[in-house]
Amino acid sequence: MTAMSKAFATAKDFGASLAALPRADVGRRQSACHRQQRLTKPPGSLGRLEDIAVWLAGWQQGGTPRADNIKVVVFAGNHGVASRGVSPYPPSVTEQMVANFESGGAAINQITCALGLDLQVMPLNLQTPTNDILTGAAMSVADTLEAINIGAAAVDDGLDILITGEMGIGNTTIAAALSAAVFGGTGADWAGPGTGHDKDGIARKADVIDKAMARFRNECGAATAFETLRQLGGREQAAIAGALLAAREKRIPVILDGYVVCASLAPLFKDNPAIVDHCIAGHVSAEPAHARLLQNLGLPPLLDLGMRLGEGTGAALAAGIVRTAAATHNQMATFEEAAVENRTDAG
Amino acid sequence: MTAMSKAFATAKDFGASLAALPRADVGRRQSACHRQQRLTKPPGSLGRLEDIAVWLAGWQQGGTPRADNIKVVVFAGNHGVASRGVSPYPPSVTEQMVANFESGGAAINQITCALGLDLQVMPLNLQTPTNDILTGAAMSVADTLEAINIGAAAVDDGLDILITGEMGIGNTTIAAALSAAVFGGTGADWAGPGTGHDKDGIARKADVIDKAMARFRNECGAATAFETLRQLGGREQAAIAGALLAAREKRIPVILDGYVVCASLAPLFKDNPAIVDHCIAGHVSAEPAHARLLQNLGLPPLLDLGMRLGEGTGAALAAGIVRTAAATHNQMATFEEAAVENRTDAG
Repeated sequence: MTAMSKAFATAKDFGASLAALPRADVGRRQSACHRQQRLTKPPGSLGRLEDIAVWLAGWQQGGTPRADNIKVVVFAGNHGVASRGVSPYPPSVTEQMVANFESGGAAINQITCALGLDLQVMPLNLQTPTNDILTGAAMSVADTLEAINIGAAAVDDGLDILITGEMGIGNTTIAAALSAAVFGGTGADWAGPGTGHDKDGIARKADVIDKAMARFRNECGAATAFETLRQLGGREQAAIAGALLAAREKRIPVILDGYVVCASLAPLFKDNPAIVDHCIAGHVSAEPAHARLLQNLGLPPLLDLGMRLGEGTGAALAAGIVRTAAATHNQMATFEEAAVENRTDAG
Repeated sequence: MTAMSKAFATAKDFGASLAALPRADVGRRQSACHRQQRLTKPPGSLGRLEDIAVWLAGWQQGGTPRADNIKVVVFAGNHGVASRGVSPYPPSVTEQMVANFESGGAAINQITCALGLDLQVMPLNLQTPTNDILTGAAMSVADTLEAINIGAAAVDDGLDILITGEMGIGNTTIAAALSAAVFGGTGADWAGPGTGHDKDGIARKADVIDKAMARFRNECGAATAFETLRQLGGREQAAIAGALLAAREKRIPVILDGYVVCASLAPLFKDNPAIVDHCIAGHVSAEPAHARLLQNLGLPPLLDLGMRLGEGTGAALAAGIVRTAAATHNQMATFEEAAVENRTDAG
């Protein structure tokens, strides 16, 4: 599969790929664990940095964790449900923020620049919002496949790590619907302030989600990952799902961003929980349902900084931590190399 | 005060400086808050990054937060109390690790290198450990002043941010004694595994701390910050205290590292709680008493990655986050600049 080929010709292809996920290399993980024990520090004293180095080594070629070539892809989409007052910002802001990404003025631009990460922005047919999920499927099968394949095509061969970000007015409502479809619960369980709703706004959003879920459960029953994304998702959610699955096929580790990105993964998790194995949660956002979603996905977050911006910002920040995990693993001296005595009870 | 002058001629000078701390600039803080509200993101959506940018602006000259010129100074010392079996590693490891820092093989070397931070290593008279704190004061007045002034001299004019790190076999026992002296409690409240003690080792350590505290309380009563550092500290703790106070005088913000660094600050906090205003806690370590200490100091940690290595590693990692806080504050476009519509209820 090259970067420009169509990764998934049909919904069935997507499901087949999801059912047959490659696994991490056990031997490479063990070698990395062994090296960690020999580095000049008390065993375990680098905490999650040690786990991250071993995790990278298990997925990447050669067994040496790498975190140099990291790309953030920001997918943007517009949503029919935005007409129902689920956001305090008008839908026109999606396109305006895409222009802001392209001219370098947004938060994600500064974070990727400060950390030396590549940034790609992919607006997805912004002039034609998806259908309102209260009245029918968000997208046609063809539209869903197109978005999934655009996401998959953004995953270049040779990346060390992939980060997906998103922008789309109304898309925390979409994230809530996807989360409720996979993990159950009501609109109130999964609705939050998003870009800054007050109590009334959140209640209105919860009601919208409940109505979308009633339609979905009535019309669709037990839906596949593809069908859930098609019914309740949007283009940027489908693109993220396609990118995460393509990254897995290429054994490229992923740092997940916030609520919307994790909710795009949720339908895949329902069909095959092993999908999270090549992913870590870069952060837990201030959107309250994100912590609940991460718990359901079994992913402990790396950062907890009260962020709730999307764009890939939390994951991009976490990339700095992941990079130091690789650097300590690869470049620290061993006890033998540095002639440092080991613990007196270590033999 | 130049970098090479003697910052504190007497213990009284040190106390006088601690009693008359400069404060953050309120006007610069307000300007920075105002700018945050105008940047192209929902207000508050960058979470702690926004608070950090405003905090930097309040301390630094010019009101523009800067995080380019960051130095990590690792102070190393040896402790008489190490002879009481409080660490699973022999005291010779302190000097061996200093050599490892100098040849670039330790964790702090890789983290500072990955993030572009300056690193300075300052071994403090390692061939002559301080006195055993169970039998008397750790240091003479002259020794304490010398270490404090070495720490103060390491704070170069023009630094954007200072980070202090430490290395010293036995120094989590010293940290526990300093913490107990300031905040009360028993040895068991403040003793932890350190570099890797088991349950018996921790109990032995707690007993050593209780004995040191009994002597200290009996001989010293209500001691000043200087006297507490002299009685129960070590050279690297006194140097850290001197560096933190000198940084405050130069209005240089500080990212605090783990248990030992924060315990070195504790005696200063007892005499003047405003000492923490130019400091943020870079992380909370896996050493259990560090969370308790941060709570007593009123400092919420930025990172929680299960690290417990010292050397300044947790704070150095946090410097990457702080740098992005400055970058987003300074370089993001405003709503006006980017022609992005603000929230529909904001006008």
